[in-house]
Amino acid sequence: MTKKEFPFSEKAVAVYFNAAFTFLDSIIDRSASVIITDRNIFNLYQQKFTGWRTVVIPSGEEHKQQSTIDFIIQQLIELEADRNTFIVGIGGGVVTDIAGYAAGVYMRGLKFGFIPTTILAMVDAAIGGKNGVDAGIYKNLVGLIRQPEFLFYDYSFLETLPREEWVNGFAEIIKHACIKDEVLFEALESHSLDSYMKDKDLIAALVEKNAGIKFAVVLGDEFETGERKLLNFGHTYGHAIENVYHLPHGHAVSLGIVKALKISGEINNFSSTESKRVMDVLQKYSLPVNLQVDSQSVFSILKMDKKRSKNEINYILMDKIGKAVIRSISFTQLEKLIKENI
Amino acid sequence: MTKKEFPFSEKAVAVYFNAAFTFLDSIIDRSASVIITDRNIFNLYQQKFTGWRTVVIPSGEEHKQQSTIDFIIQQLIELEADRNTFIVGIGGGVVTDIAGYAAGVYMRGLKFGFIPTTILAMVDAAIGGKNGVDAGIYKNLVGLIRQPEFLFYDYSFLETLPREEWVNGFAEIIKHACIKDEVLFEALESHSLDSYMKDKDLIAALVEKNAGIKFAVVLGDEFETGERKLLNFGHTYGHAIENVYHLPHGHAVSLGIVKALKISGEINNFSSTESKRVMDVLQKYSLPVNLQVDSQSVFSILKMDKKRSKNEINYILMDKIGKAVIRSISFTQLEKLIKENI
Repeated sequence: MTKKEFPFSEKAVAVYFNAAFTFLDSIIDRSASVIITDRNIFNLYQQKFTGWRTVVIPSGEEHKQQSTIDFIIQQLIELEADRNTFIVGIGGGVVTDIAGYAAGVYMRGLKFGFIPTTILAMVDAAIGGKNGVDAGIYKNLVGLIRQPEFLFYDYSFLETLPREEWVNGFAEIIKHACIKDEVLFEALESHSLDSYMKDKDLIAALVEKNAGIKFAVVLGDEFETGERKLLNFGHTYGHAIENVYHLPHGHAVSLGIVKALKISGEINNFSSTESKRVMDVLQKYSLPVNLQVDSQSVFSILKMDKKRSKNEINYILMDKIGKAVIRSISFTQLEKLIKENI
Repeated sequence: MTKKEFPFSEKAVAVYFNAAFTFLDSIIDRSASVIITDRNIFNLYQQKFTGWRTVVIPSGEEHKQQSTIDFIIQQLIELEADRNTFIVGIGGGVVTDIAGYAAGVYMRGLKFGFIPTTILAMVDAAIGGKNGVDAGIYKNLVGLIRQPEFLFYDYSFLETLPREEWVNGFAEIIKHACIKDEVLFEALESHSLDSYMKDKDLIAALVEKNAGIKFAVVLGDEFETGERKLLNFGHTYGHAIENVYHLPHGHAVSLGIVKALKISGEINNFSSTESKRVMDVLQKYSLPVNLQVDSQSVFSILKMDKKRSKNEINYILMDKIGKAVIRSISFTQLEKLIKENI
């Protein structure tokens, strides 16, 4: 186990890499804690949760809605949770987003920590304090920015992670490489999904590397006034299609990256050779690079993106592999790009 | 108009006392703002809201629930509210609590300001950044502490305030006097509700005095680790009976004060003469001093109070008029006091 501390404005977040689940008892008081997890993780790891008070929510992105928060609040009341109760969210990004948000509003805020169980949550979703739920088709429209007390990485959860969830996680890893780290990008070109799935040390190192990238970016810009916006690479378009076409998050991000590559070529002189390298890596990790969509309806959802202001939107584009930039694009121009250019 | 600034940790809150509604245009950009108000205020002051985008929620404490937040979120989506949208909550404490909470979670937080329209909201509810909703019968169980950008006092709203709402507001004013200000208490003894209702200057001065008391306490202890707890005087028992017996908030607080007086006599040597003076003032301002309740069910709700820890609860008791103290009472002792002593 390696412990690192990341100093956010509100508090330091402790990160335990490569920790065994039983170590949780040495961080928090079991009798004053409530675990929030989903049906899927609960069924797979029931024995781990013995002796812990546990709220089990339904699995799946479609439950990342206010109704699940309402359910958790009722469960916390029944468990007589009070201001000193500690919440532990255990699961993928949907679970950590939901658990962090419920903890943030119950009795005006309980302390909480996360045990991410998917690659995607380990390298991205559980890091940075953005928690919340969707409002119908609008992704993450409701929520808070509030940091957990800790993140806890128990890689044994990956043993049951389905291959398609590995693929999902790699969308965010490829995103990190594109916007921040050319060396990481080259590593992804030289390895394969199978090599990472088979080699525990290799995946542990990759997770820690990517968690480090995400922590560095969000620490530098906790409330997303600048640099942190880069992490939205692939997400503006990705979020617009994700719920409408019921896509896994990684697939939506992959398609969003492809869209961003094309716009980058169109208005930021991003080279087509580099663009092809990124497309090749996406495909190498089994991610989709095209999808027929109704561009009119996608554009109308995209206009509701949180990153927009009145008549324009901040869009993240590629400069070169390992470096992204923020560009403001008017809705008029974007509408044209979205409709013509896929 | 008098402007004051109160420096909270997160930001300074600007307070405009005795301001005309039209002055609002000089503080915020109408085209980037959304007003949240209730049916009651909207019907009475429709002409004031002309030209402002307005979300109208149903009136009444029974609507201070998550479903009203869900409704507001949908309305904000339809109005294409974005991160730069400014929310103005106009109404009594229910409206400001709801509007502040909705603003706090929409797109992870919009800026907001309040125009309190009742005595209760002016002297108490709109001040201090506690916003949220009830969860069924549990008062303010879900919410946030987040400060508004401004408070705006337009006393002309008081012209349509029903007498019973004046009575409600005076419960909090009497509370302030009891815990913090003997001189204010004596002023309340010498004046009457009618004199305050008739004399605009007298009520303006009383509102500003009481807003000042509340601001001073919350500024000294924004996140309620100590002194701010005193403001819960009358509220622990009050909240336990409010939703079950469908009491107006001021009535519930008045009955809570009476309960606290009795417990103060029992375990804090608070004199019965002083206790009688408080009861007399409550009655002078038409507030109730007794109610038959099912003490068993009241106690079971009281156990869910946010101020509790595992086996005890922080209870606010009188020391003398103008001075309150925080005492930790075990549930065992409290159960006895609640059941025997009303």
